[in-house]
Amino acid sequence: MVSAVEEAATRCVTLPPSPVLKASLKRSLPPPMSLVMTDGLPDEISLDNLKAVLPTSKNGESGATNGNVKYGDSHGAVKSNKNFVLGRDMHGSSFKITEPDHDDEVTGEKDAYMASVLARYRKSLTEKSKYHLGYPYNLDFDYGALSQLQHFSINNLGDPFIESNYGVHSRQFEVGVLDWFARLWELEKDEYWGYITNCGTEGNLHGILVGREVLPDGILYASRDSHYSVFKAARMYRMEAVKVDTLLSGEIDCVDLERKLTEGKDKPAILNVNIGTTVKGAVDDLDLILKVLERVGYTEDRFYIHVDGALFGLMMPFVKKGTWDLRYIRKKSLSGEVHEAPKVTFKKPIGSVSVSGHKFIGCPMPCGVQFTRMKHINSLSRNVEYLASRDATIMGSRNGHAPIFLWYTLNRKGYRGFQKDVQRCLRNAHYLKERLREAKIGVMLNELSSTVVFERPLDEAFILKWQLACQGKIAHAVVMPSVTVEKLDNFVEELIEVRKRSFPEGNVKIPCIVEEVGVQNCACSLHRGAGTIPLPKGEKRVSACVQNGNSINRASH
Amino acid sequence: MVSAVEEAATRCVTLPPSPVLKASLKRSLPPPMSLVMTDGLPDEISLDNLKAVLPTSKNGESGATNGNVKYGDSHGAVKSNKNFVLGRDMHGSSFKITEPDHDDEVTGEKDAYMASVLARYRKSLTEKSKYHLGYPYNLDFDYGALSQLQHFSINNLGDPFIESNYGVHSRQFEVGVLDWFARLWELEKDEYWGYITNCGTEGNLHGILVGREVLPDGILYASRDSHYSVFKAARMYRMEAVKVDTLLSGEIDCVDLERKLTEGKDKPAILNVNIGTTVKGAVDDLDLILKVLERVGYTEDRFYIHVDGALFGLMMPFVKKGTWDLRYIRKKSLSGEVHEAPKVTFKKPIGSVSVSGHKFIGCPMPCGVQFTRMKHINSLSRNVEYLASRDATIMGSRNGHAPIFLWYTLNRKGYRGFQKDVQRCLRNAHYLKERLREAKIGVMLNELSSTVVFERPLDEAFILKWQLACQGKIAHAVVMPSVTVEKLDNFVEELIEVRKRSFPEGNVKIPCIVEEVGVQNCACSLHRGAGTIPLPKGEKRVSACVQNGNSINRASH
Repeated sequence: MVSAVEEAATRCVTLPPSPVLKASLKRSLPPPMSLVMTDGLPDEISLDNLKAVLPTSKNGESGATNGNVKYGDSHGAVKSNKNFVLGRDMHGSSFKITEPDHDDEVTGEKDAYMASVLARYRKSLTEKSKYHLGYPYNLDFDYGALSQLQHFSINNLGDPFIESNYGVHSRQFEVGVLDWFARLWELEKDEYWGYITNCGTEGNLHGILVGREVLPDGILYASRDSHYSVFKAARMYRMEAVKVDTLLSGEIDCVDLERKLTEGKDKPAILNVNIGTTVKGAVDDLDLILKVLERVGYTEDRFYIHVDGALFGLMMPFVKKGTWDLRYIRKKSLSGEVHEAPKVTFKKPIGSVSVSGHKFIGCPMPCGVQFTRMKHINSLSRNVEYLASRDATIMGSRNGHAPIFLWYTLNRKGYRGFQKDVQRCLRNAHYLKERLREAKIGVMLNELSSTVVFERPLDEAFILKWQLACQGKIAHAVVMPSVTVEKLDNFVEELIEVRKRSFPEGNVKIPCIVEEVGVQNCACSLHRGAGTIPLPKGEKRVSACVQNGNSINRASH
Repeated sequence: MVSAVEEAATRCVTLPPSPVLKASLKRSLPPPMSLVMTDGLPDEISLDNLKAVLPTSKNGESGATNGNVKYGDSHGAVKSNKNFVLGRDMHGSSFKITEPDHDDEVTGEKDAYMASVLARYRKSLTEKSKYHLGYPYNLDFDYGALSQLQHFSINNLGDPFIESNYGVHSRQFEVGVLDWFARLWELEKDEYWGYITNCGTEGNLHGILVGREVLPDGILYASRDSHYSVFKAARMYRMEAVKVDTLLSGEIDCVDLERKLTEGKDKPAILNVNIGTTVKGAVDDLDLILKVLERVGYTEDRFYIHVDGALFGLMMPFVKKGTWDLRYIRKKSLSGEVHEAPKVTFKKPIGSVSVSGHKFIGCPMPCGVQFTRMKHINSLSRNVEYLASRDATIMGSRNGHAPIFLWYTLNRKGYRGFQKDVQRCLRNAHYLKERLREAKIGVMLNELSSTVVFERPLDEAFILKWQLACQGKIAHAVVMPSVTVEKLDNFVEELIEVRKRSFPEGNVKIPCIVEEVGVQNCACSLHRGAGTIPLPKGEKRVSACVQNGNSINRASH
C-alpha cells in the first residue's frame, strides 16, 4: 500500500516548507496588465476574442531542466519512478485533546480555548479556499438551507433499495439522485443499481470488484495515467493487472492496448476507462476501445468496462451543443473522419460508471456516485453466497448527508446550470492557458478538459500557497466553477514574479517538459512552444493536443 | 456481495409495512406502572435497588414458536440460513429531481417545493430519532459550534501524516484525535499509524488487509457472530476464511477456535476479535485467544489480530473502576479463577483496532478510527511496490469534518465524561432487561454490554416504529447515551400492549428462543426464564450469560 520505505517514513522527515510560509510571500505585485476583470468572464466573450487579446508569445528563454526541485506527485497518479513528497511530522502541529478540568462542567477556559482554535481554523480555511487552484474541487457552494439537518445522525445503512429498520436515513434523496443519473446515463430505473459513495475511490473499488465478480479470472487493463486507486484495487483483490501506455495527452494508447489485449486473450478483460485522468484531464476514447475489443475478438460476455469519470464524467455531458460542439465534442481522426467524443451511456456495453460528487458539484465532504447494471448485482447474488449479507455496497454504513447535498444542487442547478458552469470552466481554462503561454510558460490543455498542465514552479512556497498538485516536472491547475478570471490573473502575475525571483537577475531558464506535454507545448529554448525550432533530422514533429484518432504513439525526444 | 437472487430482488418486492404505519399505532397506553421517571436514572440508584423495585417474574405463558413471522436480519450479522428482509421499491417514495423552470433563476415555486421537502424531512427525522432504539448510535450530540465549517470542502486526502498540497484539510484535528487513541491503546506516537475512516466497516477492511499483507498466505479466523464486513473482506481479498462457532452469549468459542487453528496450523492465522458483537454485544476473550494461539504453537510472527471494537471498543475502557469493576470487569472462569476482562492494548500482540465514531461518541455521519502499528505500514512499504501510491488508507479522499466532530466531543467529554455515559448506558440497559423480564419477555444481556437481546416482536409496525434490528427470532435494543429511562418505559409499555394485541383475547404465546439466548433467558412455557420448569431427563441446564472461562459449548435443546 506504500511504495517505498523512505516514502512511508516521510511522516517523520523534515522537508517542511510549511504552509505558513505562504504568509511570507509578499504579494506586492503590479495589477493585471491589459485585462482587468473583477469576476468571471462575461458569457459573450468568445475564445477567439480572447486569443486576440492574448497573443501566444513565441520567444522562449534559454532551455534548462530544473534539476534542483524536489518533485512530488501529491496527486497520487501512477508514475513508474518514485517521487518524494512534502511530508512532515503532524504530531507537532496537531490540536491536542485535553481532559476537561472538572467532573461535570466544561470550564470557561476550555470553551474559550476550543472557540479560539475553531476561529483560527476557520480563518485559515477561508484563506486557503481563496488561493486553492490545484485540486478539482468546486468550493463554490451554499448549503445553508441544509444546516438544520446537521444535528441528525443520518446513515444510509447498506443497500439504497433495501430499507433497513434504522429510520434516520436519506434513501428518498439518494434514490432521487440515482434516478437523475439513470436519465443522464440512459438506463431504465429497473435496470440499474447504484449508491452514493464516500468518494471516487470507493466508486473505482466497487466497479472493479463488480467486474472481478462477473469475470473472476479477468485481467485488469488500465492506462498508466489512471488514478492510483485502480491499481490499488487490483492489489487488494488479487487480480492480474496490466498497465497500458498513454499518449502525451494522457489518453490511453489504443495501439498498446490492442497489443496487450491480444497477449492476454485467453482470459477475459476488465478495463478501466478514464473520463478525465487525474493529472492531465485526458479522456480515453471509449468508442475506440470498444472497436479494439471487437477487433481482437472479445465478445461482450468476455469483457467488463468500468468508467472512472471522477471529475469530467459530470462535466462532459454538459458541454453545450452549438458554439462549442465543433471545438469540443467532435474529434477529427487522422483519416480525417469527424466523430463524436466518446459519450458515456449504458446503451454501450459498459458495466459501471463512477463520478465524484465533491468535485464539479461541490460538497463539504468527499462523496460520489457509483452506478452499475442491476443484472451484474443480480448475477453476483446467483454466483456468490455472500454470507447472509444483502449489502452490495463496500462501506455498509454510509453518510446520509451526502445524498441531500447532491439532491439540493442537482435540483437548484439542473442541466442548464451545469451547462453554464461547464462553459465557464472551459472558457476560463483556455484563458489561463493563453495567459501562461503569453508568459512563455510551457502549458498544455486537453480538449474537453479544464485541467491546465504547466511547468512545475520552482518556488515551493508558491506551490503550497496555490495548492498545486504536482507530478514530476509538471503541475496543474483545475479550473472549477469557483475559479474566477480574477483569481487566475492573480495567479499568473504571481507566478511570473516568483519565476523571475528564482533566477539570478531575473534571467529565467525555462525547463524542458517536452516529454510531459509535447513539442508544441514545451516552452524551453529547444522547443519554444508550437515548435519553431527545427527538430533533429528524421524526427517527426508531433503535437500532443491535436493527436486524434488515437493512433499516434508517444512523441520521441 | 448479495446472498441470494430473491434477496437482491427485494428492491422491487412489495413487502412494505411502510414506516408511516407507525403513525397509525395508537399510543393510548397507561402510564408506566410503579416507576415513573422523567429523564435518565439518578446516578445514586444501584442495580440492586432496581432489582428490588422490579422483581423478575417467573410465571410464563404457554409456549409457542412464532412461525408466522417474516424474519429479517437487517443488522446484517452472519447467519447461515437465508432470511428475508423488509424491502420496498424506493423509486416511488424518492424525492425527484426536476429541472429549474428558468434559465437563470431558481423560481420561487421551486424554492418553496424544496423548503417544504426539507421541512417535512426534518420533522420525520425528529420523530424517528425520538423512537430509535435498535441501532448503536448515540443521537445525543450538539455540534452547533461547528456549523461555521459546513461551507468548506474539507478533505484529508490520503495519509494523515503525509501532508498533501490541498490546504483545506483537518489533519491537525485528525492527528490530535489519533494521539488521544494512542494513549488509550498504549502505543507511542512514533509507533502507531492510523486514520479517521468513513465507518467501522472501513476499519475492518483495512485491518484485515494489513493482516493479509503482513501474512500473505494467512487464513482468516472469525466467529460466526462477527460483523458481515469481516467475511466480505475475506471474499474481496481472496483469502481463505474459517468461521468459528460462538457460545450462546455470542462470544467466540475458544474450544472450536483451538480445533480449527490446529487444523490450519500449516499456514499463518489472521484473527478477527470482536469487542462487542453486532447482535448480542458479546466480547471475545482476547487473553484466552492469545493463550490458545500459544498452546497450538503459533509464534507472534505467525499470527495477526485485528480487533473489531466498533461499538464497545470505545465503551469498555470507561467502565468505572470501583462499584462496577467486580461486576463488569472481572470474570470468573469455570475453575473459579477471577481474571480481568480482556483489555484492548497494544502491549499485547495485536495488530490493529478499529472503532466507530458515530456510535458511542455520536456524529452526524458515520465515521471511525483505524489504528495499527507503524511497523506494519513500514513492512508493507518494504514488501510491496504499491504503484507510486504512498497512501495507505483505503478511501484516499476522506471526510475532513469527521475528525473535527470527534476532536470536539473528546475535548468536551474527556475520559470522565465517557465514564459517566458508559455507566448510565449499562445501568439503563439493566433496567430495560429487568423490565422485560418482569413482563415475561425472553431477554438476555451480556456482561460488559448495553445491547439488550429479546424476543422479536410479532408486530412489524412496532419494529419499524422503534427501529429494532432483528435477526431470526430475536431483536435487540442498544442502550446509548441518548436513550433515557422514560424512553425505555414507553417502549416496554407499548411492547406489552402490542404483544397482547397480537393474540386472540390477549392470550399471549411466548415464543421459545432458547437456542438464541439459553434456558435461563428464554421465557417460553418450557423454560420460563431462569429455568423453573424441569428439563427432559439427562439434559443439563446451561446458562448463557453466566458461562465464563469460555469452555462451555452451545446449550443443546
